[in-house]
Amino acid sequence: MTKQKATNVTWHDGEVSRQDRFAILKQRGATIWFTGLSGSGKSTIAVELERALYKIGKLSYRLDGDNVRLGINKNLGFSEEDRKENIRRIGEVAKLFGDAGVISLSSFISPYMADRNEVRQLHEQAGLEFIEVHVDCSLAVAEKRDPKGLYKKARAGEIKNFTGIDDPYEAPANPEIHLHTDKMTIDEEVQIILDHLTENGFIIKQEYLSADDTQLAP
Amino acid sequence: MTKQKATNVTWHDGEVSRQDRFAILKQRGATIWFTGLSGSGKSTIAVELERALYKIGKLSYRLDGDNVRLGINKNLGFSEEDRKENIRRIGEVAKLFGDAGVISLSSFISPYMADRNEVRQLHEQAGLEFIEVHVDCSLAVAEKRDPKGLYKKARAGEIKNFTGIDDPYEAPANPEIHLHTDKMTIDEEVQIILDHLTENGFIIKQEYLSADDTQLAP
Repeated sequence: MTKQKATNVTWHDGEVSRQDRFAILKQRGATIWFTGLSGSGKSTIAVELERALYKIGKLSYRLDGDNVRLGINKNLGFSEEDRKENIRRIGEVAKLFGDAGVISLSSFISPYMADRNEVRQLHEQAGLEFIEVHVDCSLAVAEKRDPKGLYKKARAGEIKNFTGIDDPYEAPANPEIHLHTDKMTIDEEVQIILDHLTENGFIIKQEYLSADDTQLAP
Repeated sequence: MTKQKATNVTWHDGEVSRQDRFAILKQRGATIWFTGLSGSGKSTIAVELERALYKIGKLSYRLDGDNVRLGINKNLGFSEEDRKENIRRIGEVAKLFGDAGVISLSSFISPYMADRNEVRQLHEQAGLEFIEVHVDCSLAVAEKRDPKGLYKKARAGEIKNFTGIDDPYEAPANPEIHLHTDKMTIDEEVQIILDHLTENGFIIKQEYLSADDTQLAP
């Protein structure tokens, strides 16, 4: 008898649906949208969350400056219009990933509330989840870290319209997740997001509770 | 003892890589790029291929006018510049999907060789596979089908710059797959693509050979 390999697949007529893709992946697609000052730790948390999800066999994908600004948005500059379009396109890409079943992790300062809310609306209209994560870090701490030396340049006037210096950061009024990074370790931050994903049915709790670094080490 | 759920995952230090994502999905990401006249059957084949891949538990995602023209490319019109930018953005999105591990299926006329080759280059530079599929259908047959009534409008002069009528279709010189749709059934066409994916290691042969409609029916 022919062996059925894909045990999580139920055949039906018609086109493959979003739910079918979620079934293949054993997860629900979603957009996790990190927002916060430069140097607040958005990318660091995204990398650690990606590792944590990978350890339990969940597919996530990071959208960040490296693969977006140099790719789909390479024809955009830093004018107000272009910054708005930058966030819009990232939101549309995230929406496609969510529809495909992937948990995308977007790490962009995305300082303007209106732009983020537009991305939220795009998701809601498509019946997809937008999980806004405020990576809340004081300007003093972010500026002290200054991992790319950008605050120094902004203070020296070499960079204009730098968020937190001469351009505003509009904090989310009601984010799904608010990380007070001055009071939390990165492990705690990742756990909060994992708990949110579990409580909202994107991943299954048992899976990450059973994951264990030692066990998974080669 | 803690049970390891994700048996295909091998833990290591560092960031999650493309190969790690491919391991989670048990497939390699790739871009299948259908090109051909309006009415040639690109979308129909993409839908059937998506069904065939789903039946063996493989994750694919279709990029087409419905989710692209109304989304990330909604601010583009039909000028030469915008049509070029339309294809470029789709190519960049497909590249991200391939990097994530997804097999994306793009169905756009994409009539210009230079635009398609630019997308191919984007993929090659990123170490990703671009599988160009020429959905080869004579203009006479495509025009006779005219599923959206577009040829009729183009002949009447109501649509300008319509591919095949008053705008050229530049056929691929050396596509990975050339489907002579006048001599093939859709099942044969899908099988040719599945064989290509198998022979090039994107999916594993045994899995689709063991898939069986009857068996998978609920």
